[in-house]
Amino acid sequence: MIEQRIRDSFARQSMMQTLGAEFASVGTGTVTISAPILPGSRQQHGVAHAALSFAIGDSAAGYAALTLMPEDSEVMTAEMKINLLAPGAGDMLRATGQVIKPGRRLIIVTAEVHAITGEDEKLIALLQGTMVPVAA
Amino acid sequence: MIEQRIRDSFARQSMMQTLGAEFASVGTGTVTISAPILPGSRQQHGVAHAALSFAIGDSAAGYAALTLMPEDSEVMTAEMKINLLAPGAGDMLRATGQVIKPGRRLIIVTAEVHAITGEDEKLIALLQGTMVPVAA
Amino acid sequence: MIEQRIRDSFARQSMMQTLGAEFASVGTGTVTISAPILPGSRQQHGVAHAALSFAIGDSAAGYAALTLMPEDSEVMTAEMKINLLAPGAGDMLRATGQVIKPGRRLIIVTAEVHAITGEDEKLIALLQGTMVPVAA
Amino acid sequence: MIEQRIRDSFARQSMMQTLGAEFASVGTGTVTISAPILPGSRQQHGVAHAALSFAIGDSAAGYAALTLMPEDSEVMTAEMKINLLAPGAGDMLRATGQVIKPGRRLIIVTAEVHAITGEDEKLIALLQGTMVPVAA
Repeated sequence: MIEQRIRDSFARQSMMQTLGAEFASVGTGTVTISAPILPGSRQQHGVAHAALSFAIGDSAAGYAALTLMPEDSEVMTAEMKINLLAPGAGDMLRATGQVIKPGRRLIIVTAEVHAITGEDEKLIALLQGTMVPVAA
Repeated sequence: MIEQRIRDSFARQSMMQTLGAEFASVGTGTVTISAPILPGSRQQHGVAHAALSFAIGDSAAGYAALTLMPEDSEVMTAEMKINLLAPGAGDMLRATGQVIKPGRRLIIVTAEVHAITGEDEKLIALLQGTMVPVAA
Repeated sequence: MIEQRIRDSFARQSMMQTLGAEFASVGTGTVTISAPILPGSRQQHGVAHAALSFAIGDSAAGYAALTLMPEDSEVMTAEMKINLLAPGAGDMLRATGQVIKPGRRLIIVTAEVHAITGEDEKLIALLQGTMVPVAA
Repeated sequence: MIEQRIRDSFARQSMMQTLGAEFASVGTGTVTISAPILPGSRQQHGVAHAALSFAIGDSAAGYAALTLMPEDSEVMTAEMKINLLAPGAGDMLRATGQVIKPGRRLIIVTAEVHAITGEDEKLIALLQGTMVPVAA
């Protein structure tokens, strides 16, 4: 089952544990990952480091691609662009990855990263990139 | 002195400590940062997570920009694109950031990330992006 | 009136005339531009050149930003990334630009380019970039 | 012979003729293309349209990739990012494309675009992207 495969793969990504990241949801062509802004995930002004937004945005996009792949395939990021829209301040970050166009050789993906503060959510980063299938 | 300012700022970026990153060198318009591939910085196949290359590449590029800024300014990443060329396998990673075009409003930067194995070094990632000055 | 300002600016962009591009619609924070695939706008296989998708996608995104600017301002592209999803084949191309986040110093924009064939439309390119305000 | 193959392909790209673009040089893994700033290639302030820099930068990068491909292959742009550093003003533009990393599935490329005015040359755009091989 795809959700289990993705959870297994995620569990092996030690960087995700280091950052405290967790799956929030998995759907066909879309995956959501959340992460607290840990004391060890900050830049010099105390808000989330850009690398935290990148890490969970890229992973959400990659796992979104993986939901559409055959069982013997994995994906790798070929390239990713991130625009940072606002400081990563709040209770936690949440990244939602989405497949824009699946393909046999290239999978085009996007992700949005929101900072969550209580009931509020604010878009803080936008990612657009390319995943490539690799044999598992 | 610019090197001290940069080392102070770096020391306040807890994400850099989490990833074990260190300054390797600071020059005018160029900064080099190295990082081990810690057990907690990996993806599901045991090599460096793309977010590690992004983190040190983006920081090297940002601090390269900072070397050209007046004392009362800092910089922030507006956008960054990373192409991943090869898996991040080796003893450590080293990112070299460089200012391509300084400006009052936008500073265009690039960074290269190499994986170092003994005497060997292999280019594993290329970054191109924009830093913006902010009041310190 | 904003639509007139945009039409005047567009009329001065000789590249848009060269490519046969026209405004399809102008809304607050969104602009649509269409262009035929002229005999002189093609790549070596006879479909639309990537530069045509870029040209109308970038312009649609830039004018989308301009709809939100004060009268004495214009915008300039600081950076733009395009992912090409499918060949540009069809009767015409249509680019829809959208402002994701307006700002005093940076305006984050996206654009989608579709190829139109009769009633069909196919997403062929996705753009994500940054516009900067400049004094008119 | 590779130079002839590239000149033949270039001759079939009608967009290059529309923009007045010409090959300046072809080497292994690097290609240079120049273009005048034609009256029909401008933006609203009379300097070169960003799409002109994109068009010749992307083509120079693509043909640089093609110099490394077997005879029965062509390349296509998968994605390209452009940072615009300065207005495209001068006698002409010149784009130099370069292969950073060749590959069987992905070829990572960069390009620089300079504006030439008499003896002066000024870097006006930087591109970084991915080409994919396709059967000819």
